[in-house]
Amino acid sequence: MGNALVLQTDFGIADGAVSAMYGVALGVSPDLRICDLTHEIPQYDIWEASYRLIQTISYWPAGTVFVSVVDPGVGSARRSIAVRTEGGQYVITPDNGTLTHVKRMQGIAEARVIDETVNRLAGSDKSYTFYGRDVYVYTGARLAAGVIDFAGVGPEVDVEGVVELPIVEASFDGERVTGTIDVLDVRFGSLWTNIPRDQFDRLGVSYGQRVEVTIEDGTRTVYKNFLTFARSFADVFVGEPLVYANSLDCMAVAINQGSFAKAYGIGTGTNWKLSLRKAPRLVYE
Amino acid sequence: MGNALVLQTDFGIADGAVSAMYGVALGVSPDLRICDLTHEIPQYDIWEASYRLIQTISYWPAGTVFVSVVDPGVGSARRSIAVRTEGGQYVITPDNGTLTHVKRMQGIAEARVIDETVNRLAGSDKSYTFYGRDVYVYTGARLAAGVIDFAGVGPEVDVEGVVELPIVEASFDGERVTGTIDVLDVRFGSLWTNIPRDQFDRLGVSYGQRVEVTIEDGTRTVYKNFLTFARSFADVFVGEPLVYANSLDCMAVAINQGSFAKAYGIGTGTNWKLSLRKAPRLVYE
Amino acid sequence: MGNALVLQTDFGIADGAVSAMYGVALGVSPDLRICDLTHEIPQYDIWEASYRLIQTISYWPAGTVFVSVVDPGVGSARRSIAVRTEGGQYVITPDNGTLTHVKRMQGIAEARVIDETVNRLAGSDKSYTFYGRDVYVYTGARLAAGVIDFAGVGPEVDVEGVVELPIVEASFDGERVTGTIDVLDVRFGSLWTNIPRDQFDRLGVSYGQRVEVTIEDGTRTVYKNFLTFARSFADVFVGEPLVYANSLDCMAVAINQGSFAKAYGIGTGTNWKLSLRKAPRLVYE
Repeated sequence: MGNALVLQTDFGIADGAVSAMYGVALGVSPDLRICDLTHEIPQYDIWEASYRLIQTISYWPAGTVFVSVVDPGVGSARRSIAVRTEGGQYVITPDNGTLTHVKRMQGIAEARVIDETVNRLAGSDKSYTFYGRDVYVYTGARLAAGVIDFAGVGPEVDVEGVVELPIVEASFDGERVTGTIDVLDVRFGSLWTNIPRDQFDRLGVSYGQRVEVTIEDGTRTVYKNFLTFARSFADVFVGEPLVYANSLDCMAVAINQGSFAKAYGIGTGTNWKLSLRKAPRLVYE
Repeated sequence: MGNALVLQTDFGIADGAVSAMYGVALGVSPDLRICDLTHEIPQYDIWEASYRLIQTISYWPAGTVFVSVVDPGVGSARRSIAVRTEGGQYVITPDNGTLTHVKRMQGIAEARVIDETVNRLAGSDKSYTFYGRDVYVYTGARLAAGVIDFAGVGPEVDVEGVVELPIVEASFDGERVTGTIDVLDVRFGSLWTNIPRDQFDRLGVSYGQRVEVTIEDGTRTVYKNFLTFARSFADVFVGEPLVYANSLDCMAVAINQGSFAKAYGIGTGTNWKLSLRKAPRLVYE
Repeated sequence: MGNALVLQTDFGIADGAVSAMYGVALGVSPDLRICDLTHEIPQYDIWEASYRLIQTISYWPAGTVFVSVVDPGVGSARRSIAVRTEGGQYVITPDNGTLTHVKRMQGIAEARVIDETVNRLAGSDKSYTFYGRDVYVYTGARLAAGVIDFAGVGPEVDVEGVVELPIVEASFDGERVTGTIDVLDVRFGSLWTNIPRDQFDRLGVSYGQRVEVTIEDGTRTVYKNFLTFARSFADVFVGEPLVYANSLDCMAVAINQGSFAKAYGIGTGTNWKLSLRKAPRLVYE
């Protein structure tokens, strides 16, 4: 059956675009297993595409081939590349920053540029707007099915040159850890930061203790309060906010059965800073 | 290929959560067939999760393994269980009421509590917020693929103890049948009640005859009118309301090519009562 | 493994309807490969169902079986048919116009009416509202899995009699090509017309040259401007409108990284006319 092929796009699933990609892949190999990461990436949002990849890729077996098509520069000179990660999965994508988190957090072992003289759906030469169907999924299917090996994708290129979006690292100043709000948990309105749990651990906060959470949008303080550091949502009341380590082992803030993002109008991006420090002990006299 | 694994959650499909579950399942067995029931259950809505299960489970072959994760109590003391239904399918879920309809309408033959010392994704011990990925789908994949048999899930528990949400039964008072509006047909705005067709049959209404429909929200009468009892939508005019037996063989009310729920602001739950009686014969003189 | 079964409906994916169809298909053959075209067709919109079929069908291998259920006349006397296309794919659908584009653009080689005495899920005789589950997907699964051959679907009928929706053809008057806006690219707001690229080529416009675009809704002119004819979006500035050949090789109009449809309130259907002519050369003195 070969390896799984996993698709991510910003196409949505309301028209036939994703289905045409499935058809092309099954035309390469009728036995191929094809799955979806998501097709609901906001249009042109390379950052979120990059984040969703790192959120899931390590849960897939080595050999899995991801095809990610969020491609505002379709038809431009941006390269089409394929990489092998340190975990042994493959990602095929326009080289526009989609690999930012995979490169930094998981690591890229090898990168190649797609040779379109070989890896392009027959008869698609006149089409300039649907690379996802004509080049990316076609190449991904061939790789997943074993029609080509990784070298068959095209010539090797320098891993260092793979495009990265600017990232601000989380930092610890001895008293507080500060990071950025990277992404929202879409349905539940939780804030996911780039603060790793082990950095948070340096604050010496135990489950059940309180943390001072400050959120700033640029220079404006949007939120400041003391929250419980909880193992999971059930450790606090319904409607109560909490700090927890999310399923990526980074620090997150949420309201149990509510939406923190909607409650306080919180957004994402490097302009949104969140800091955590151990709350002072409150003594009522 | 083993048995199919069918996933239901309230996660939506816009982020990587469902895809991570797929990856974990394929890590257990690369040949596994994985399908979706739905991931659009409204957040935390255990009732609807229970209803969607009974809507579909009997159309799947015996041996199919359902994993349902609508889990407002994640991380709390609620049990994680697996049941074998009278139809031979399996369901793995938090024991929070998700099995209400399956238990009452299809029947549960055997129930077991998941032994997490065995059935938990390696390396996930520090994660407390994503049981769906770390325990439920992992266990479901092992069961579907035959890595474990049902006894391998964990120790048997009393079927009677499986948690049920409160349900109001439909009733017949000699003249009218009364039930509750259980759920909406999301896209078409039809009202699906808990009144079984055979109970309705006691009214002695034939296709084409008229039925008095009364809808009450608590003590307020929201709708009262005479509707045609139709075999299907095409038996009435476009825009005309009708009473029919839905695909679960329960009584339903709809507007042909319109939305009954939107037209009259109808909701769901045990507070929403709908009653049907044979319409008096109208004689115009 | 047999041939792939591809499903299209207007059911959405929020309830259990599509999943029940999957279960029925796997009950026919546990090894069947089942994929989705889309389940987000606007309710009862036969035109869009027809369009999405032609958008994707040619990218699927011969032998693939499509089941399309957009069926406002469910339960009426409309026929249930199956066709073999000139490309060798099959489509099973109510005969209500869903095959309009496939019949005209790809061609139908053979048509048959479903014999429901044979091709109907056992025990579903009393259900009149879910033909998609009880007849269409059941028949499609049997055909895809090889349980029946095409003749086994039911008696052959005249291809000419397959129902078509009214279509207005694109035309060329020596100076301009005029067509209708058939459909929107849902997520990106582009307008897809029925003007084939080879008809546009008769205007003698090269990439980078300008085209006069006029859009009329009935007798009202909604838009008139000069746009660049571009190979793809990246050939124009972000926010700039363009004319291009879409992935179906028909002419389309879009705004690079914006929504043309939202910007100017454009709709679809035979009332929406779009014409293109070579722009006069502008000389600034």
